[in-house]
Amino acid sequence: MKNKISSSLIVLNSDLIAKVISELGNENFTFIINLIEELHPADTADLLETLNSEDRKKVVKIIKRNFPSQTLPSMNVPILLDIIEEFEISHLVRMLSELDTDDITYVLEICEEALRKKVLKNLPKESQKLIKKALTYDEDSAGRIMQTDYVSIPVSWNIGQVVDYLRMSKRVPDEFYALFAVDSRHIPVGTVPLYIAMRKKREVKIADIMTTNPKIVSVNDKREDIGFLFDQYELTSAPVVDARGRLIGMITVDDVVDLIRQKADEDMYKLGGVTGEGDLYLAAFKTARSRFGWLAINLITAILASISIAFFETALDKLVSLAILMPIVASMGGNAGTQTLTVAVRAMATRELTSSNSLRVFGKEILVGAYNGIFFALLIGIVTGLWFKDYLLGSIIAFAMLFNLILAGTFGAAIPLILSYFKIDPAVAATVILTTITDILGFVIFLALANYLLI
Amino acid sequence: MKNKISSSLIVLNSDLIAKVISELGNENFTFIINLIEELHPADTADLLETLNSEDRKKVVKIIKRNFPSQTLPSMNVPILLDIIEEFEISHLVRMLSELDTDDITYVLEICEEALRKKVLKNLPKESQKLIKKALTYDEDSAGRIMQTDYVSIPVSWNIGQVVDYLRMSKRVPDEFYALFAVDSRHIPVGTVPLYIAMRKKREVKIADIMTTNPKIVSVNDKREDIGFLFDQYELTSAPVVDARGRLIGMITVDDVVDLIRQKADEDMYKLGGVTGEGDLYLAAFKTARSRFGWLAINLITAILASISIAFFETALDKLVSLAILMPIVASMGGNAGTQTLTVAVRAMATRELTSSNSLRVFGKEILVGAYNGIFFALLIGIVTGLWFKDYLLGSIIAFAMLFNLILAGTFGAAIPLILSYFKIDPAVAATVILTTITDILGFVIFLALANYLLI
Repeated sequence: MKNKISSSLIVLNSDLIAKVISELGNENFTFIINLIEELHPADTADLLETLNSEDRKKVVKIIKRNFPSQTLPSMNVPILLDIIEEFEISHLVRMLSELDTDDITYVLEICEEALRKKVLKNLPKESQKLIKKALTYDEDSAGRIMQTDYVSIPVSWNIGQVVDYLRMSKRVPDEFYALFAVDSRHIPVGTVPLYIAMRKKREVKIADIMTTNPKIVSVNDKREDIGFLFDQYELTSAPVVDARGRLIGMITVDDVVDLIRQKADEDMYKLGGVTGEGDLYLAAFKTARSRFGWLAINLITAILASISIAFFETALDKLVSLAILMPIVASMGGNAGTQTLTVAVRAMATRELTSSNSLRVFGKEILVGAYNGIFFALLIGIVTGLWFKDYLLGSIIAFAMLFNLILAGTFGAAIPLILSYFKIDPAVAATVILTTITDILGFVIFLALANYLLI
Repeated sequence: MKNKISSSLIVLNSDLIAKVISELGNENFTFIINLIEELHPADTADLLETLNSEDRKKVVKIIKRNFPSQTLPSMNVPILLDIIEEFEISHLVRMLSELDTDDITYVLEICEEALRKKVLKNLPKESQKLIKKALTYDEDSAGRIMQTDYVSIPVSWNIGQVVDYLRMSKRVPDEFYALFAVDSRHIPVGTVPLYIAMRKKREVKIADIMTTNPKIVSVNDKREDIGFLFDQYELTSAPVVDARGRLIGMITVDDVVDLIRQKADEDMYKLGGVTGEGDLYLAAFKTARSRFGWLAINLITAILASISIAFFETALDKLVSLAILMPIVASMGGNAGTQTLTVAVRAMATRELTSSNSLRVFGKEILVGAYNGIFFALLIGIVTGLWFKDYLLGSIIAFAMLFNLILAGTFGAAIPLILSYFKIDPAVAATVILTTITDILGFVIFLALANYLLI
């Protein structure tokens, strides 16, 4: 497994996990308590995710009083739901109070409504207001990702004033990478990265060293656009503004790293026909249910393919070699189409494929299908000819192969572009549409030609 | 397309690209020059990537004298190769001199050897040494990603000394997020994030505020481990040390964001049977060639499936309904197996699936296969019974479906785990192995049962 080749960077390796499980069995609570005290909260979250539900609850019971609050937002949704009921309301409130607003929101939005209401009521008034506000923003928007702690300074200040303010103020966030300069209406007019501020003398004016025209996120901007922004301009933090342009929060790069990984997870899952969140951690029956829909759609398309085959019942009855050969063309079409589709879907997600170059990419994919089509047509034609001692049959399958690979390239590029035009997520629907088309076309072209020329 | 729903965060939208193309046609060079001056170097890179080769070279010619050096490392490999020959050696050397070592290395390693040697020879002696050294590190290692500029300070200093040093020194990198405290052997013993340093008075000692036990990267650590490290511990920068533990470089979060995206790209491409780097930007023939290998393997497996069907020639000859129905079971097996496979491969990449929980996940996937298997067996059994008025045939396909879905879950989980045990990348080989198995088993179980019970 992974851990065999893992470097020293990996704290939570399988030896350590095995040790935890065995010490749990030995009821060696001191070992567990000491370990969690040493572990980073994110590693503790991973440990809890890896254990089975029984062991997990055992660990939570043992470390309950010192449960690291930062571990809560680091856990996957099903695991978090599994353990959250172990804590009393007052305890949960105490832990949440230590977190940033974005993390509190993450934890609260997965709780059942009754629990959420109880917890919210017991949080400090100020937090209550911020979190209720955060929960009104779209799940996919900057409002949910931002934290409401940030460092804003009047644009008229100099470095000396900033340094004195930072040294004395208690309302400075734990971590920040830039100072946001605001005007009298609290509108951000510039940013000063700390590595610039650190190098300037006390009398230097903020207005003289700030980046005017900073990248500013609006509270309704979408997750994927924010991921793009940080990746493209190598940002470490960005100010978030409300509809009137006033500074109301900050997004930091660590949250965006999560976003980018999650977006990649989602796209990969969707292409593989998996839509359930936290699929790995769901119980078997829930997983089966969440994967059921996609398989049901696939069953319908498979039956459609069978119906299309049934039209050629007579030909199949007369020539059994057709039944033996017919999956080859369909399978190659599906695979060639998937190659094109994968590139197109991923390139759209990373904004490399847009309306500006879609026509060129589309033309190219048809050409790619033709190049490989010619080659594989020759190959399968010769193999079939030799196998069945029938060179007309060989020519027929060759032609079907060429045709299906060109169509696979065409549809592999066209389907995601069309879906996206109609604002449908290309990753979720494209695969099933594509393979339905390449299957049916693969069967029909081959069987129809054979029916016409051989029967 | 994308741009229809893009937010104001996206500078380079399709309207702007259309404008560029039309102004290029009008030979309006001033427009191009002014635009590039305004654009962020990363947006300029995207613009060049989106244009066709002819327009791209036209733009490069127009802006040549003021070509932004930061645009070079932001470009995809095929595009960079396409334009790099437009620059004279001395010009290239001048641009590269403005970049960090990791960026220079990225550009130089894709150049032909002759060009690389010429450029290297003309770089300052100090850079030459650093880059030659960087090129000796494994392509996948920290040595290639790190920059050699960083801020190291003696651990005995206080904040006042650090601030004075930062204000006066000319060897400070453009961007940095932490101070690395080193002992007399230049071994890092702690880090101080700038947001901590900024808040402390001049007389505070570094040793008193630094994070002892910082996360340190070794020069030979692998890309994916570094991605995990930054993601897990929400780092913005990390010191890199040589084999003797001495500080030699720094990795920053912006490089890691690239790493994480690239790793996701690669995994998704591999699962989709695409291995060529920069597939979207390659010419059609090169793309066809790079995708050819995977299709060739698929052709072999498709022929193997056909051979397995041929064993049941007599049965197919007698009962044409078998030919009509047989793709259904194979197709459902392939899809159910792909769901399991996708979750397993992705979870291994993100270290959520390890040897510690593999047995549990394996058992669960068999159960998931059984749950959905029972349901879809009933469904297809009834459909087939009604369609062909043959309930024994319905029972046979139902049994084949149940069996194949259980096996699909089993192999979908087992294949990536086994591949990884033998240190083979699960993303690259798993799909083809899985679909070969589910295809052949799907055909054989159904046809063998029918042969035994119906013929």
